Amino acid sequence: MAVVAFIGLGQMGSPMASNLLKQGHKLSVFDVNPDAVQRLVEKGAQPASSPAQAAKGAEFIITMLPNGDVVRRILFAEKGVCESLSKDALVIDMSTIHPLQTDQLIADMHARGFSMMDVPVGRTSDNAIAGTLLLLAGGSAEQVERSTPVLMAMGNELINTGGPGMGIRVKLINNYMSIALNALSAEAAVLCEALGLSFDVALKVMSGTAAGKGHFTTTWPGKVLKGDLSPAFMIDLAHKDLGIALDVANHLHVPMPLGAASREVYNQARAAGRGREDWSAILEQVRNSAGLSSK
Amino acid sequence: MAVVAFIGLGQMGSPMASNLLKQGHKLSVFDVNPDAVQRLVEKGAQPASSPAQAAKGAEFIITMLPNGDVVRRILFAEKGVCESLSKDALVIDMSTIHPLQTDQLIADMHARGFSMMDVPVGRTSDNAIAGTLLLLAGGSAEQVERSTPVLMAMGNELINTGGPGMGIRVKLINNYMSIALNALSAEAAVLCEALGLSFDVALKVMSGTAAGKGHFTTTWPGKVLKGDLSPAFMIDLAHKDLGIALDVANHLHVPMPLGAASREVYNQARAAGRGREDWSAILEQVRNSAGLSSK
Amino acid sequence: MAVVAFIGLGQMGSPMASNLLKQGHKLSVFDVNPDAVQRLVEKGAQPASSPAQAAKGAEFIITMLPNGDVVRRILFAEKGVCESLSKDALVIDMSTIHPLQTDQLIADMHARGFSMMDVPVGRTSDNAIAGTLLLLAGGSAEQVERSTPVLMAMGNELINTGGPGMGIRVKLINNYMSIALNALSAEAAVLCEALGLSFDVALKVMSGTAAGKGHFTTTWPGKVLKGDLSPAFMIDLAHKDLGIALDVANHLHVPMPLGAASREVYNQARAAGRGREDWSAILEQVRNSAGLSSK
Amino acid sequence: MAVVAFIGLGQMGSPMASNLLKQGHKLSVFDVNPDAVQRLVEKGAQPASSPAQAAKGAEFIITMLPNGDVVRRILFAEKGVCESLSKDALVIDMSTIHPLQTDQLIADMHARGFSMMDVPVGRTSDNAIAGTLLLLAGGSAEQVERSTPVLMAMGNELINTGGPGMGIRVKLINNYMSIALNALSAEAAVLCEALGLSFDVALKVMSGTAAGKGHFTTTWPGKVLKGDLSPAFMIDLAHKDLGIALDVANHLHVPMPLGAASREVYNQARAAGRGREDWSAILEQVRNSAGLSSK
Repeated sequence: MAVVAFIGLGQMGSPMASNLLKQGHKLSVFDVNPDAVQRLVEKGAQPASSPAQAAKGAEFIITMLPNGDVVRRILFAEKGVCESLSKDALVIDMSTIHPLQTDQLIADMHARGFSMMDVPVGRTSDNAIAGTLLLLAGGSAEQVERSTPVLMAMGNELINTGGPGMGIRVKLINNYMSIALNALSAEAAVLCEALGLSFDVALKVMSGTAAGKGHFTTTWPGKVLKGDLSPAFMIDLAHKDLGIALDVANHLHVPMPLGAASREVYNQARAAGRGREDWSAILEQVRNSAGLSSK
Repeated sequence: MAVVAFIGLGQMGSPMASNLLKQGHKLSVFDVNPDAVQRLVEKGAQPASSPAQAAKGAEFIITMLPNGDVVRRILFAEKGVCESLSKDALVIDMSTIHPLQTDQLIADMHARGFSMMDVPVGRTSDNAIAGTLLLLAGGSAEQVERSTPVLMAMGNELINTGGPGMGIRVKLINNYMSIALNALSAEAAVLCEALGLSFDVALKVMSGTAAGKGHFTTTWPGKVLKGDLSPAFMIDLAHKDLGIALDVANHLHVPMPLGAASREVYNQARAAGRGREDWSAILEQVRNSAGLSSK
Repeated sequence: MAVVAFIGLGQMGSPMASNLLKQGHKLSVFDVNPDAVQRLVEKGAQPASSPAQAAKGAEFIITMLPNGDVVRRILFAEKGVCESLSKDALVIDMSTIHPLQTDQLIADMHARGFSMMDVPVGRTSDNAIAGTLLLLAGGSAEQVERSTPVLMAMGNELINTGGPGMGIRVKLINNYMSIALNALSAEAAVLCEALGLSFDVALKVMSGTAAGKGHFTTTWPGKVLKGDLSPAFMIDLAHKDLGIALDVANHLHVPMPLGAASREVYNQARAAGRGREDWSAILEQVRNSAGLSSK
Repeated sequence: MAVVAFIGLGQMGSPMASNLLKQGHKLSVFDVNPDAVQRLVEKGAQPASSPAQAAKGAEFIITMLPNGDVVRRILFAEKGVCESLSKDALVIDMSTIHPLQTDQLIADMHARGFSMMDVPVGRTSDNAIAGTLLLLAGGSAEQVERSTPVLMAMGNELINTGGPGMGIRVKLINNYMSIALNALSAEAAVLCEALGLSFDVALKVMSGTAAGKGHFTTTWPGKVLKGDLSPAFMIDLAHKDLGIALDVANHLHVPMPLGAASREVYNQARAAGRGREDWSAILEQVRNSAGLSSK
């Protein structure tokens, strides 16, 4: 069992710390909210009056904080973690913060001779309580191996994301995709309602197509991902269908800002001469727009 | 076996007509391209010099045409289908056209005493060749039942979409969702590349979340679809994460037009007082924006 | 004075026809609404029972109709203008329709030996009443010269737009710019309100800058329009300022869909290596995105 | 003549400081770049080794820095301005930073007993050299009055923006409007080129309409700004024209992301029941979307 400092006892941090206690780890805890600290103390944790005090003697220091500025302050400010941190300890930031801040924090810690990794979590606060979080471990192979026993007290699945800073990166990509997809899904569902079509019928159809299953594992692998842009479904036709959908939506007063934005992406692909390529070539189009040369 | 007129022998129509012949149906065919007609004649079809001639004596008239204006012309113009159409015949439009045009066409046919249904298809030209199309049947129960034996010569799955015009509606929704999702997926994948993150790792993570599985069957059913907006993941936090992703993307020069549009949808949800609701409440937000009152 | 057929007596057409009468022109009028016809008859016009009857004997046929499909029907359908049109007459379409439809209509008329030009109007229904419309004349020099006396009965300013189809094109560009600008202006004004800033102060400042005066005649002529992209104000800095504005707007819950879309255009310009060019280089960026090569 | 500390000698700051010297003010200067300092020293300034040293004995401390974090550090960090600042001195931040940071900086300075105002500048680096900047003075009446003689050494027009933080606010609004407008203008110009229309003709037409003159002083004052939403030009018609423009642009492969976004704003206005209101009602629509109630 390990000696762990846990800093940040919010909606996610509190149950995560509780689970560490349940697994028999020795915990010192710090939070600006004394009630949150008290609840953990009642479960067996040691209260600390500062991040420095919490970190004193700890093998692992876990931070679960609202943003990167707070993480920086907790580490480097007066009475911060670094004041008492052992060179042998491992700092594990589990917060969701800006990835470029994560890189800078890890670099700054490294420059001081300290070891730090990023392990943001997936799933919800219910999973935090149940100890079934998804752990997105960013760090060296050694850091991942060393932290795994502690981390698995809080989650039931750990993915080694491939290196320092990669945990927070994959969290960002995942959240970007799911959050934007939520808005796009709402446009489709509202258009469905406005058209008087049963949502169940729409679901049934979409469950068998890229609309419901996504493109990453359906339309892309056999085409753009292996460099084949011959058309299974042409960009020109996709652009035409999108135009019909937007026309209908505007007729029915259904706002479609994502759909409207996507039509202009297809439009741009056509301007770039991709009209008769497979629709998966949109990936190449966006790559080019980002200044990345074609593969 | 049925007597069928098939009008429109393009990339999809030709193999669909071939499959009807293979199943033993008697076919008369019409297309503006004589080569396309000739190829079907070699397989046993009767050539027709006009839509009217093709329709003469047919029990089913199938149209597979580029847009609704062409369908209208084929039906109603001089030497069009209606000139020789039997009142007992069933016109099946399998084209992908504007749904409100479909409604008008069906109404205009009905006013002349004719029967018409919409059965657009899903999947690709490969499936058209293999006879494994998805058939999205819009029509009365009687029309669907009557047409099923003929339709199943061209596909291997038929979904009864619930009424006249519903086939083309579900096709539109499905295509809207998958075409726009393609552009959104490209943004996520390019950001992944720009961040130096392995796409395989991203896929692995997303395959277990709404990012990869979609929202319709994961985050929505337990929340917004049953009227529960208590937060599993708050709109305010989703908005924050989206802001980080866009900030990183702009730093790395990855254009994110769909992401940028979606952030403003969340922004609007917050302005409407939904910041502390579950992120699935975006559906309610978009419904309200479309002038639909909350359920 | 001329013999004129006027077809389309709506909110704009009625006062335009009245002004023609006032100037002494001889008018036959047609509209599907008999009340509208009756009002013009009371002012001295001859009623016509069809477009063909209206056009019979007329030197000029003016159409002021809701869309291009209606114009086409009025010209070419049974009892349409073409049935009685003199080869010496000039058809003047003053409707706001799709420019590519205008091109087709002019071509189709020409193929039948008829002469047609496009003269959409600027300004409002108040100007239609006062006879002070802006006349955007598209046609050959001869057509413009010939029509001017008749047109000037309805307006007080005529711009020769440079050839057939150019009148409707300039109308489209002008309306596009002003209609989208209206939405952008609303975003700026609402952000101003949300920031607690006096709108009068904002107006005072913007009245002296490109924000209020536009770019066409201020920042562009000395830079991108003469091929000089050396920075007076760098794209990188414009992108930064836009990011701050969007960040503030999102903080204050002000939706900024146009601003968000524009940030991604600057983002793309930076990806294309234009970050240190003058902000007017956005014109070159958009040209390139449209598949036009740099000048 | 005043004793002035000038901190931040970049592309804008250097000529501004030079102009202060030319007007006879006594200057101490600080910058991280020793060359920039040296050039000012050659013109008569005193070099300072830290912000604190520069501020010592100064009546006015002017900061011209890249962002708000740097301004904060210059003021509050070790050897920062506050270490030697007189309670009688006035700090003038002329940087373009985040307005909410400006508010916080002014509040933090006030809490320490110091006086600070915001005076960002308008126009370009050429104007900085010529001493003809636009000065956007945010501060109390007393602060504005006191700083005016010093400020006017750098500019030729000073606008009192109405209070602390209002200078940076109006700068933000102005830049937002002009930067986004630049992208919108490019869409219109490229559509013009793609349509084969002379840009000069388009300019001539737009110079007389809201497209070229903006809405703030043309279409809005007589309508939405005085609460009259009766239509001079209906939202339904504006929406229709926008749809035509986008349709043409997509046909010609001209990407229109701002236009596409604006169409959805009009769409939303129509969903909110505003279709038959004047197009200036878009302001009310955006206000409502931002959670502001109708006036």
